Amino acid sequence: MARERLVVVGGDAAGMSAAANARRRRSPDDLAIDVYERGPHVSYAACGIPYYVGQLVPAAENLIARRPEQFEAEGIGVHRRHEVRAVDTVQRRVLVQPLDGGEERWEPYDHLLIATGSVPVRPQVPGIDARGVFGLNTLESGMAVYRFLEEERPRRAVIAGGGYIGLEMAEALCLRGLEVALVEKEEQVMLTLDADMAGPIAQELERVGVELHLGESLTALETADGRVQAVVTDAGTIPCDLVVLGLGVRPNSELAREAGIGLGVRGAIVVNERMQTDTAGVWAAGDCAQTFHLVSWRPFWVALGTVANKQGRVAGINLGGGYATFPGVVGTAITRVCELEISRTGLQEREVRELGWEHVAVRVEAPTRAHYYPDAGRMAVKLLAERGSGRLLGGQIVGTDGAGKRVDVIAAALHAGMTVEEFVHLDLAYAPPFSPVWDPLLVAARQLLSRV
Amino acid sequence: MARERLVVVGGDAAGMSAAANARRRRSPDDLAIDVYERGPHVSYAACGIPYYVGQLVPAAENLIARRPEQFEAEGIGVHRRHEVRAVDTVQRRVLVQPLDGGEERWEPYDHLLIATGSVPVRPQVPGIDARGVFGLNTLESGMAVYRFLEEERPRRAVIAGGGYIGLEMAEALCLRGLEVALVEKEEQVMLTLDADMAGPIAQELERVGVELHLGESLTALETADGRVQAVVTDAGTIPCDLVVLGLGVRPNSELAREAGIGLGVRGAIVVNERMQTDTAGVWAAGDCAQTFHLVSWRPFWVALGTVANKQGRVAGINLGGGYATFPGVVGTAITRVCELEISRTGLQEREVRELGWEHVAVRVEAPTRAHYYPDAGRMAVKLLAERGSGRLLGGQIVGTDGAGKRVDVIAAALHAGMTVEEFVHLDLAYAPPFSPVWDPLLVAARQLLSRV
Repeated sequence: MARERLVVVGGDAAGMSAAANARRRRSPDDLAIDVYERGPHVSYAACGIPYYVGQLVPAAENLIARRPEQFEAEGIGVHRRHEVRAVDTVQRRVLVQPLDGGEERWEPYDHLLIATGSVPVRPQVPGIDARGVFGLNTLESGMAVYRFLEEERPRRAVIAGGGYIGLEMAEALCLRGLEVALVEKEEQVMLTLDADMAGPIAQELERVGVELHLGESLTALETADGRVQAVVTDAGTIPCDLVVLGLGVRPNSELAREAGIGLGVRGAIVVNERMQTDTAGVWAAGDCAQTFHLVSWRPFWVALGTVANKQGRVAGINLGGGYATFPGVVGTAITRVCELEISRTGLQEREVRELGWEHVAVRVEAPTRAHYYPDAGRMAVKLLAERGSGRLLGGQIVGTDGAGKRVDVIAAALHAGMTVEEFVHLDLAYAPPFSPVWDPLLVAARQLLSRV
Repeated sequence: MARERLVVVGGDAAGMSAAANARRRRSPDDLAIDVYERGPHVSYAACGIPYYVGQLVPAAENLIARRPEQFEAEGIGVHRRHEVRAVDTVQRRVLVQPLDGGEERWEPYDHLLIATGSVPVRPQVPGIDARGVFGLNTLESGMAVYRFLEEERPRRAVIAGGGYIGLEMAEALCLRGLEVALVEKEEQVMLTLDADMAGPIAQELERVGVELHLGESLTALETADGRVQAVVTDAGTIPCDLVVLGLGVRPNSELAREAGIGLGVRGAIVVNERMQTDTAGVWAAGDCAQTFHLVSWRPFWVALGTVANKQGRVAGINLGGGYATFPGVVGTAITRVCELEISRTGLQEREVRELGWEHVAVRVEAPTRAHYYPDAGRMAVKLLAERGSGRLLGGQIVGTDGAGKRVDVIAAALHAGMTVEEFVHLDLAYAPPFSPVWDPLLVAARQLLSRV
């Protein structure tokens, strides 16, 4: 019998990372660890799902980072298909329901980590529960789409939502030979970028054959015999036999809310830098937990595998008796749509305005390599800085061929609170195969400097 | 007749960048600008020469960034094949020798910018002046090698020196179908990286057929009829009909020294952050000028196109009546050898030891993309931090496929004076085509953190 018991609710990135880190520091005699996971899989790479659907990744198996047996071998109890229905924070116990039969039961804990992730936004429109309509946030849901493609051979897909998942799934389904339409209620795709950066992304989608319906809202799904037949928007009807919802996700924080644990931005669980909630003995990490934005200096919520892994690691170190903190994020994200690399960090123009701050911005286009070097690509860089102070506020990149990861330099500068004046002096690497003499980031910074 | 006159000595990156920036701020009526360049070309990309020799770049023309006529059209006098032989800092005049005939003459200046660049180190060994032996630092010298390849059809080349130019030329000559041997007096190539990072580079060179002679010193060149026949080292004789010297460069500061202008590290001209020398009215920029190392906090010298361009820009803004400073470098450099991207920034172990500081280091290997994503490459990352304080001191990267430019993140962190603890929290971009969930840089930082 272990001295203490850690219960983890949710067995993906944050939960398993925490469990593994806690185990590394405390032996099974000292700390029993039990993970309850509603689904059949633990520790998988949700971000890889579009590449599995698009058959760039051969099998769902490949997305599994570590198997349950590996955790069990380390003395971590992994209980798949077990749902935690309630938390009693006074008596420190959770109500566990085995999903494959058996009675629900109360299990005690000394420390509880809530790592329940996020759930896809499902609009309450007619037909939303029809066969052929998929959300995408678990490996199971990805496998369900895959099976549907194999068994039903759909020919025409509509993607609802032009964000990361929507765009990645649009490309994946193009690769699978479907006709693909994409519906987005705003006038641009990729709302986390400014409109002047999103244009080339729309062009790239159209280049590979995606039919764009911008400025259209999903109002209903037409069905027949319980199967989806068409997507109806406020502008018309788009026939289809497959619908993928990419309308964003929200924190899966019902369990915490019902237990009286404090929630914050968008309903995410409030945590401090060590990942402790406002309730004694209860921790949270990953997509269900809030974080902090190091550029806006405000609480923030984002659902990303990187953040989940980092928060999980920090929670695990602390639960293991160590000391670690997670200061927050600067809002970095990246994806690829066909040939285009798309990345962003910090605040975009809309976010700056919402804070009531004022900014200057610049957008430049430049080659990704020396102009004379073969196969030089093109990239657009946008940089934002605070008016007056010149503090760098954010950056966006759209381009080919090594453009995207350059955003990490801007992210590092945001962490450091650099001004444009400081940024312009960065000693960035140059050789003809990698960059023009003035890296496009520095070209942008030089121009921005004159506007601060 | 202009109110004042700026004379620029040397018409490549630093000189022409300064001239253009000064011109942008002051009209020809206000400031006459005359550039004297010893060679036949101005404003070219010296870093592109190996790619021109290797025929990745179709013509020498492609390396020319701007033509003399473009500068002339802006009211910048460009005098090619004119050598400045002496500077009289008291009477503010330079002695100009036209190289294509004509008398030497004194030309007055109000402001003088010395941008004379660097010269290749030429070992004083027998045969060094034989036909078939080339240094490489001007477009002319690159064109001479190219002509030699076309006209003499050499079959076997020896590269003396395993640094950036040596490695790039080894690859270029392999591409041209020559047998290539490389002689390096140390036991590793690429001395700006630590030995444990240089191993894979040597393997890559051998993979593409370069015969490595490490730990061998050049002692003589055998010649016949004034042509090189073999390279002789302390270990043997290597027959060849082409020798390329890649033994490094030194500041071309003779003119400044003779004029009594102060020299510093390795004989580079001492300048302040605005690029002023210790002598009234005299400025310097580019490879001939000293700079400052922002990690070692010591004066430093490096010959790089990026630094030359930046220093030239700063000198030009100041000469144009503006205000700009160049704070210094962190020692960033990058190159590619066949499939391998090689980059470094900050201090390497040897440099830390020379400062008398103590450090901790870590070297990790990791995939460049998510492990399940197709064509993931491999990369090795080395990070150094100061013992105790945890201040990041440097980083080195060797790998394929997007590995190299990641060094810019480390460079930004060095500029910001980040500790490893701060670095480990960086919100770097993640998506399966670009990175594992934990970017290799963060994997390295996490490990380093436990050693500080």
